[in-house]
Amino acid sequence: MNTEPKAVRYHERGKPEEVLKLESMPVGQPGPGEALVALRAAVMHPSDMGMIGGTYGRLPDLPAVAGREGAGVVLAVGAGVTALKVGQQVKMPEALGAWRQAVVAPVEDLIAIPNAVPAEMAAQAFINPPTALRILRDFVDFKPGEWIIQNAANSAVGVSLIQLAHHCGLKTINVVRDAATWDPVLKEMGADVVVAEESGYEKQVKELTGGAKPRLALNSIGGESVIRLIRCMADSATVVTFGGMVGDKVRFPTRNLIFNDLRLCGFWMDKWVRTHGREDFDAMQAEIFGLMAEGALKLPVDSTFPFEKAVEAVARANAGGRNGKVLITSDWKG
Amino acid sequence: MNTEPKAVRYHERGKPEEVLKLESMPVGQPGPGEALVALRAAVMHPSDMGMIGGTYGRLPDLPAVAGREGAGVVLAVGAGVTALKVGQQVKMPEALGAWRQAVVAPVEDLIAIPNAVPAEMAAQAFINPPTALRILRDFVDFKPGEWIIQNAANSAVGVSLIQLAHHCGLKTINVVRDAATWDPVLKEMGADVVVAEESGYEKQVKELTGGAKPRLALNSIGGESVIRLIRCMADSATVVTFGGMVGDKVRFPTRNLIFNDLRLCGFWMDKWVRTHGREDFDAMQAEIFGLMAEGALKLPVDSTFPFEKAVEAVARANAGGRNGKVLITSDWKG
Repeated sequence: MNTEPKAVRYHERGKPEEVLKLESMPVGQPGPGEALVALRAAVMHPSDMGMIGGTYGRLPDLPAVAGREGAGVVLAVGAGVTALKVGQQVKMPEALGAWRQAVVAPVEDLIAIPNAVPAEMAAQAFINPPTALRILRDFVDFKPGEWIIQNAANSAVGVSLIQLAHHCGLKTINVVRDAATWDPVLKEMGADVVVAEESGYEKQVKELTGGAKPRLALNSIGGESVIRLIRCMADSATVVTFGGMVGDKVRFPTRNLIFNDLRLCGFWMDKWVRTHGREDFDAMQAEIFGLMAEGALKLPVDSTFPFEKAVEAVARANAGGRNGKVLITSDWKG
Repeated sequence: MNTEPKAVRYHERGKPEEVLKLESMPVGQPGPGEALVALRAAVMHPSDMGMIGGTYGRLPDLPAVAGREGAGVVLAVGAGVTALKVGQQVKMPEALGAWRQAVVAPVEDLIAIPNAVPAEMAAQAFINPPTALRILRDFVDFKPGEWIIQNAANSAVGVSLIQLAHHCGLKTINVVRDAATWDPVLKEMGADVVVAEESGYEKQVKELTGGAKPRLALNSIGGESVIRLIRCMADSATVVTFGGMVGDKVRFPTRNLIFNDLRLCGFWMDKWVRTHGREDFDAMQAEIFGLMAEGALKLPVDSTFPFEKAVEAVARANAGGRNGKVLITSDWKG
């Protein structure tokens, strides 16, 4: 091997900037039933930071390699491996940590991603787009042309939802902090309406939609933002919260709960995966991969850092005003 | 007639003590298809005060007769009436206001209550016991012996739930402000555990239940009280809010929504009645009447006022520390 592969590790939980270290993590040759995978791109999520900091819903044993999501390529396979070939794009195994340049893993722990999916999209195909897809499918039985409303609409789940809803013939009201910046970007993706958080949009929702009221809201902010969503909703509507763990509590005016029959639910992709079989999972991911391969589902990338700058990339990932996710890339070849 | 019947009316919305007036409301003889009903007992609910004050989810035109719920007896029927006989106990027609000594109404608007149900129970059979019954039946599919938790457990819905759950082989944790007073009363009704709001009970729920966690909570308070309920719940549990419109917002820690898959729903009996057929309604009420007639479902009465003191009774109904509902009774016979 030319160079030893590196990994972003932490030996104690805490602020990512303080506890993350770039360390050498040598890999051997793959044994029987194993494959050697080299990272091509990994993504930085808020939930990665929650896991490093100890606030997430499940935590790895220490020391741990950081990162939940990335895509790599099979460099070598061990004896008896027929399910994967050299050159196949795969998901980095989440349980081992994704922010590493190389890993040897059992083939049954590797999920193939069609090579037609660009690595930068493959690296973000397993958390946010499926979250949007499941929330779109599993809470409300829509008729064509119905409206959905969401806050943080420029988030990765938000832009996934815009594109998936558009693809299914549903319409979206998209609430963002900075509507001037995001209006053209989100409309290019298929958004129908883009409004600013504190614009009073909630008082004119019927004008925005031509009379309709949404029966589904996606919330990843909480606080006043979710109260505004609630003011827009039809009776018996559902508000699904899937993020905002570190933000305000979700405050729910009691009279909307009772008199308008609103429902507040949560959604956690991790749990969906744990409670569903591999067949359901593969079918869902095949749909995501198909849309990504044909360019119908794209996630914006704010910036890309070489793997060696991963710890610096974290600062950018934690900064406000990003225009997409922060990626780290690697061309390690052994 | 000996005396003109009276009614508790309001000509403008506002504080009940200020806007309610005891006024004469003469009734005629029942015409074809009508019946003359004389009040025997009526109950005072917080929602009556909300309706008088203008904060409730639906409001009558003014001037209005106050009161949603009461029971009376048929004194006379008009030509062609066969569905009801003189002497039959009936619900006072809600749309016309229940706090009136007499009313003439179309027979199809009158709901018969078996005479075996005592008038004081019949007067409170249509809002709180059915609310408890529906919440018990419609949100969680229980196995025998499962636990339910509720705050305001000494409320009319609370005591109904205790008795209905006990009757169905389910167990209850009952949270009240004053556990010393309510422990013996609620246990006599079938409560399994009675705890005080600020006792730290939420940290020892498994000790209280022998290891089980509730999958259903009933909330009519909001604020910190509902947060404590949430801390006791099993994953994928449901919190049903049916009251507390004038209290704190329901604050929901986002991580419980997402990581514990909690659900927050509302329940409003009015809406259930509007969206269900007469057959469902009659079957539900027959169950309530049956339990009331056999003494398995009793609602405590704090105090009983003669009809002429109805406006004074309102002050007692709005006071804290009651031991049940305030009733007004009448023996007007025409």
